[in-house]
Amino acid sequence: MKVKKSEDFDEWYNEVVEEADLCDKRYPVKGMNIWKPYGWEIQQNIDSIIRGEMKKTGHKEVYFPLLVPESLFKKEADHIKGFGSEVFWVTHAGEKELEERLLLRPTSETALYHIFSLWIRSHADLPLKTFQIVNTFRYETKMTKAFVRVREIHFFEAHTCHTDFKDAEKQILEDVKIAGNFFDKLAIPYIISKRPDWDKFAGAYYSLGIDVLMPSKKVLQVASIHQYRDNFSRPFEIKYEDESGEHRYCHQTTYGMSERVLGAIVGIYGDDKGIALPSFIAPIQAVIVPIIFKGKEDMVKKECEAVKHELEEMGVRTHLDMRDKTPGNKFYDWELKGVPLRIEIGPRDVEKGVITIAARDGLKKEIKRSGLDKIKQEMSSFDSRLFEQAKKFLDENIHTLDYIEEKEGIIEIPWCGREECGLQMEEELEMTSLGIPFPEKACNGKCAICGNEAKHYLRLAKSY
Amino acid sequence: MKVKKSEDFDEWYNEVVEEADLCDKRYPVKGMNIWKPYGWEIQQNIDSIIRGEMKKTGHKEVYFPLLVPESLFKKEADHIKGFGSEVFWVTHAGEKELEERLLLRPTSETALYHIFSLWIRSHADLPLKTFQIVNTFRYETKMTKAFVRVREIHFFEAHTCHTDFKDAEKQILEDVKIAGNFFDKLAIPYIISKRPDWDKFAGAYYSLGIDVLMPSKKVLQVASIHQYRDNFSRPFEIKYEDESGEHRYCHQTTYGMSERVLGAIVGIYGDDKGIALPSFIAPIQAVIVPIIFKGKEDMVKKECEAVKHELEEMGVRTHLDMRDKTPGNKFYDWELKGVPLRIEIGPRDVEKGVITIAARDGLKKEIKRSGLDKIKQEMSSFDSRLFEQAKKFLDENIHTLDYIEEKEGIIEIPWCGREECGLQMEEELEMTSLGIPFPEKACNGKCAICGNEAKHYLRLAKSY
Repeated sequence: MKVKKSEDFDEWYNEVVEEADLCDKRYPVKGMNIWKPYGWEIQQNIDSIIRGEMKKTGHKEVYFPLLVPESLFKKEADHIKGFGSEVFWVTHAGEKELEERLLLRPTSETALYHIFSLWIRSHADLPLKTFQIVNTFRYETKMTKAFVRVREIHFFEAHTCHTDFKDAEKQILEDVKIAGNFFDKLAIPYIISKRPDWDKFAGAYYSLGIDVLMPSKKVLQVASIHQYRDNFSRPFEIKYEDESGEHRYCHQTTYGMSERVLGAIVGIYGDDKGIALPSFIAPIQAVIVPIIFKGKEDMVKKECEAVKHELEEMGVRTHLDMRDKTPGNKFYDWELKGVPLRIEIGPRDVEKGVITIAARDGLKKEIKRSGLDKIKQEMSSFDSRLFEQAKKFLDENIHTLDYIEEKEGIIEIPWCGREECGLQMEEELEMTSLGIPFPEKACNGKCAICGNEAKHYLRLAKSY
Repeated sequence: MKVKKSEDFDEWYNEVVEEADLCDKRYPVKGMNIWKPYGWEIQQNIDSIIRGEMKKTGHKEVYFPLLVPESLFKKEADHIKGFGSEVFWVTHAGEKELEERLLLRPTSETALYHIFSLWIRSHADLPLKTFQIVNTFRYETKMTKAFVRVREIHFFEAHTCHTDFKDAEKQILEDVKIAGNFFDKLAIPYIISKRPDWDKFAGAYYSLGIDVLMPSKKVLQVASIHQYRDNFSRPFEIKYEDESGEHRYCHQTTYGMSERVLGAIVGIYGDDKGIALPSFIAPIQAVIVPIIFKGKEDMVKKECEAVKHELEEMGVRTHLDMRDKTPGNKFYDWELKGVPLRIEIGPRDVEKGVITIAARDGLKKEIKRSGLDKIKQEMSSFDSRLFEQAKKFLDENIHTLDYIEEKEGIIEIPWCGREECGLQMEEELEMTSLGIPFPEKACNGKCAICGNEAKHYLRLAKSY
C-alpha cells in the first residue's frame, strides 16, 4: 500500500480495493468495475447472509427481467421524476429501432408491480413477500467510487404486498430486525433515520435510511427500507378482494441494499496494511504460514497439513500457504487481503505442542495444539473487537446539540419539523439531513433555526 | 394440464412451464420471462452443480460488467458478424446521447479479453481459468420459447487462457469431463458433436456442441465448448512472456451453458401430469402427504412430523403438506411440480410401522419406518430410471445409415467432409448438421452425396 489510511482515507480506499484483489477498475466504461474472484466470493458470502434472513422470514426469491418498457416505468409520476435522469435506454436491437424504448432497471418496482397485479387476487394471496439479487444500473453523474457509487450495481431488493397500512408497518419492523441480524453478522454498527420528506425514495410514503460512519467521518447509506402505502398499487392496480368481497389496493414495502455494504466493510475495518474481513464473510478465515528451518521442513509441513485438515473438519475455511516466499512476504499478502486469523507453525511450536495465532488486528497468542477448537472462539473475539472499535468510533462521533455548531461526524439538532428550517440547517452546516432518529429520541428543546418548539431531533452529516 | 405431452409436445411444454410454477410469461417484453421462486430455486441448484465442478478444476468465479463498448465488440471480425444483428444497443443515458454506444453482452468474450490482456504478463499467469454466471441478451427473431429461446438468458460461461494450442486442447478434454459430471448429476443423456465449420461459434477455431434429444425428436443444444486457438488473443493482444523471454499469443477456450438445461429437463422428463425433477436439483426431494381419518389426526400428524425431522437430519429436502385439501389434490399438485418422492402416511401405516413411497414415475412401495435411511437410495434409483428411460429413447433414435433416408431423430451419414455435400444433406433431409461424432466414430463408407471416400459420419437432426 502506497497511501496510508490515516493520511488520506479516500485515496487509501481507492487503492486498497484493487490491491486487495476485490475489483479491477480498468474496464473501459466509467463506473463499471470488474469483480475479481476474491471480491466476488466475499460479496457472495454477504449475499448468503441476506438469503438466510429472507428464508427465515418467508420471503421467496424471484428473478425479473432487466429491461423495463418505458410505458411501465412512467406509471408512477414521482418515481420517473426521481430516476428519469439516470436511466440507461436501449433504443435499438441489431440495426432495428425498437418500437418502444426499454430501460435498464435502476431498481425494479415498475417491472415487478405490473406482474404483482396479476399474481394477487384475494386476501389469501397476502402478504406477498419476495426478493431478488440482481444487477441494476444508474447513470451516476457524480464521481464514481468502487462499491460506493457505481453505474452497474449488485443489488438486493425485497418487495412485499399487504392488505393494509398496518400490516405493511409490521413488515417495516421485521425489516428493521432483518437489518439488525444482517449487520450483526458483519459486525457493522449503524444508525437508522427516518429520512425527511424532501429526501425520501422516489414514490415512497416514507423511507428509513440505514447509515454507517466511515473513517472520513462522512456517512454512507448502506440500506433503506420504504413504506409505499398505496402509492404504487394505485397506478399499477395491485388490488385484492377482501373477506367481505370488496376490492382494495395493497399496501407495499421494500428493503434494498447494495454492494455498498462491502464498501463499508473495506472502509471501516481496513488499515495501513490492507482490508480486514469479519470472519463470517472471509473466503479464507484462517491462513496457515509454515515457519520453515532447514532440515525441519517435513516435520513442519506435516503438522501444517494436519492442522489444516482438522480446521476444515470443524468448518473453518482454511488455506495453507506453501508458496516459495518468506514468511514475512506471506504475512504481508494475507494482511492486505484481510484474512481474520493467521496461524504460524514452526519447528519449535511442533516440539512444544503449540501453535501461534495472530489476528488481523494484531493480537497474537499461543494456543495448545490440542485446543485447536478454540479457533472459532478466536474468530468471534476478533469480530467482536472489530465491532467494538467501530461502535466506539460511531458513538464518539454522534453529537447531540442544542444549537448549531460545526462538528465532524453526525449531528443531532432540535428541529420544529418544517422543511425550511431543515434545509437551512443543511445549508449552515454544509451537511445533508439523514432524518429523524429511528426509533425516535425524545426532544424537548427549541428548533435551532426558528426557536419554535422542537418536535424531533434532525440528524445531519456529510455523506457519500 | 390441459394438453397431453404425447399429443402435442410443444404445446404441452408451453403450458407446463407455467403450470409447474417455473416461470411467468406475461412480462410485457417478448422473450423475457419472470423466474418464479420454484423455477429460480431449481436453476440455482443447477448452477451449484456447475460451480462445484468449476471449483474442483481450479476455475475462479468473476463478474464482468454487462455493457460492452462498441469499439471492443468490433475487435474480432467474425464475432461481430455472428452477433451483430442480435445485440441490444444502449444509446442514451437520461436525456443524453452517449458518446459511444454500449451493447448488452450476448456472450462475454469481448468484455473479458481486453482485461485478460492486462491480467496476463508471463507464463506463470497461465493457465488462467475463470467463469461467470450472468444475464446475457440476444435479440432472437425466431419464435421465443421459455428457457429454450429467450432474449434475456441466464448464462454460464467459462473462459480460459493457455500457453499454446496443446494446453488449450487439454482444457477441451477437461471441459468434456466436466460436462459428463454435470449431466450425470442431472441424469441427462447427451451426445457431443464437432460442429461443421459453417456452424461453429463466431470466432472459434472449432466448436463442440452438446445436444440432447427432446421428445419431439428434435435436438436441443444445451452446452458448447469452443477452441479459439489465437483467434481472439491476436486482436485483443493477450500475450505472455515465455520462459525464454519471448512474447507469445495465448490460446483460449470457452465452455458455455444456459437455462436451456432446465428446458431439457422439463421436456425430457415431464409427462401428462407435469414435470419430473432429478433429485439433485429438486427444491423438495420428498413431500409427505398425511392420509388423515377422523379421530386419528394427532397420531398421523405426529408421525409425519417425526419422519420430516428425520429426513431433514439426513439432508433430504423435505416438505410436509398440511394444507386443508384432499390427499388426491395434494398428489396432483406435487406431481405437477415434479417432486421425486411422495411419502404417504396414514393411521394404518403408523400402526404397522411402515410408510408408503411413491416415486414421481409411478413406482410405489412400502418401506419399514425403521428403514427410513433407504430414502436416499430410492431417490437415486428414481434418478437412474429417469436416465435409463431417456437413454433408451436417445439410443433408439440415433440412426447410422449408409445412404440418405428420411428418419426421425438423429441421423449419421458417411460424409466426404466437403461443405457442399454437407449442405446438400441438410437440404435433402430438411435437417441441420450437428457435426462429426465426438469422440470420432470410424467410418469406412462412401459419401452419401458425391460417392467419394467418406472421412467421417455427419450427424444431422431437426433442431430447436
